[in-house]
Amino acid sequence: MDKVPNYSIKQIQRYPIYLKYLISMRNAGVVNITSPLIARALKFSEEQVKKDLQAITSTKGKPNLGRDINVLIDDIEQFLGYKNTDDAIIVGVGSIGEAFMKYEGFKEFGLNILAGFDINPQKIDTKINGKPIFAMSKLKNLVGRLNVKIAIITTPSSAAQYVADLLVDAGIQAIWNFAPINLNVNEDIVIENVNLASSLAVISHKLKNKLQEEKI
Amino acid sequence: MDKVPNYSIKQIQRYPIYLKYLISMRNAGVVNITSPLIARALKFSEEQVKKDLQAITSTKGKPNLGRDINVLIDDIEQFLGYKNTDDAIIVGVGSIGEAFMKYEGFKEFGLNILAGFDINPQKIDTKINGKPIFAMSKLKNLVGRLNVKIAIITTPSSAAQYVADLLVDAGIQAIWNFAPINLNVNEDIVIENVNLASSLAVISHKLKNKLQEEKI
Repeated sequence: MDKVPNYSIKQIQRYPIYLKYLISMRNAGVVNITSPLIARALKFSEEQVKKDLQAITSTKGKPNLGRDINVLIDDIEQFLGYKNTDDAIIVGVGSIGEAFMKYEGFKEFGLNILAGFDINPQKIDTKINGKPIFAMSKLKNLVGRLNVKIAIITTPSSAAQYVADLLVDAGIQAIWNFAPINLNVNEDIVIENVNLASSLAVISHKLKNKLQEEKI
Repeated sequence: MDKVPNYSIKQIQRYPIYLKYLISMRNAGVVNITSPLIARALKFSEEQVKKDLQAITSTKGKPNLGRDINVLIDDIEQFLGYKNTDDAIIVGVGSIGEAFMKYEGFKEFGLNILAGFDINPQKIDTKINGKPIFAMSKLKNLVGRLNVKIAIITTPSSAAQYVADLLVDAGIQAIWNFAPINLNVNEDIVIENVNLASSLAVISHKLKNKLQEEKI
């Protein structure tokens, strides 16, 4: 087998940005593209773009001409696993959970939301965007039957740990957590937290500093 | 004037997590709380919790008894600026933008969404959660009149740079960007990117590695 290279989190996070840009360029009729052009457009360094693309691409770029944009797009999609779509469920169909069930953009990123789960009787057994919403009592059985590995938690933070425990018990292996709380799960479960409160705290703090500096 | 201490981004991001936890403990009837207890509950190190709380609190904890939970909550809210709510507008009232207009949780974090802006004639001059949606042509005038400093971009990525330029021209000083694209704006504008595609790429990659390891 090939040696498996190590990728840093920051590097992995850059590939969807390359992908988005390359698709827009292909749509605009571009056939070949160079690293310096990509670097300028995305405000990355040339060195970084070259390194990132070499790490995942199957072919070399030609001097002056650059790389075939179709090959590059295929290579990135292959690396990110976007060709084999990941099925996921959502737990907590509040306003954020509902938005995610409606959001067509996730498909572009290879994520296919199969169903939602909620405790609200008015939501249970209805559909959003063609996707069913089930009672929590059906979670374990359905996760097993559908063989789904990824769950998105969009519950209030007070419910998130309880839900995480249920999900792990049901066989979920990766959790995308939008509840502003640190989840306590076994180390072998993949967890990615998106804490909107923390992100907003950074903005408020920087803005406050900026406005104070202007006053001085 | 007092010396202004330096806070790291990671440190600032932890305060909303402390706040959320402390409020839940206060609601559960807790009056005093110690750093080791907080550290255990949030899976932070004791050293870090002590350092973080000392950096922003006005009083010292008492040995064994700990800190007054009300004082601690007040100090964190003061530091994060949650007492003086930040007004914000949303540009792009698609499924994510709509969810944000409905999401009551932002108020807890000190963010008050005043209005949305969109190009869709069917959305313009309607309301979501009591908040009006305006045409883009009204953006400059309204941002100036309302003296709003924060904008949230939830447009498709193809429109995000154009919208960012409009916002900066209108006087916006901080942008919370949810479009999966790097925005090109003047350095003095505060930008915080939440790239859901990048976050998802990290999950997919880790999950793929995990499943491969299990096969071996």
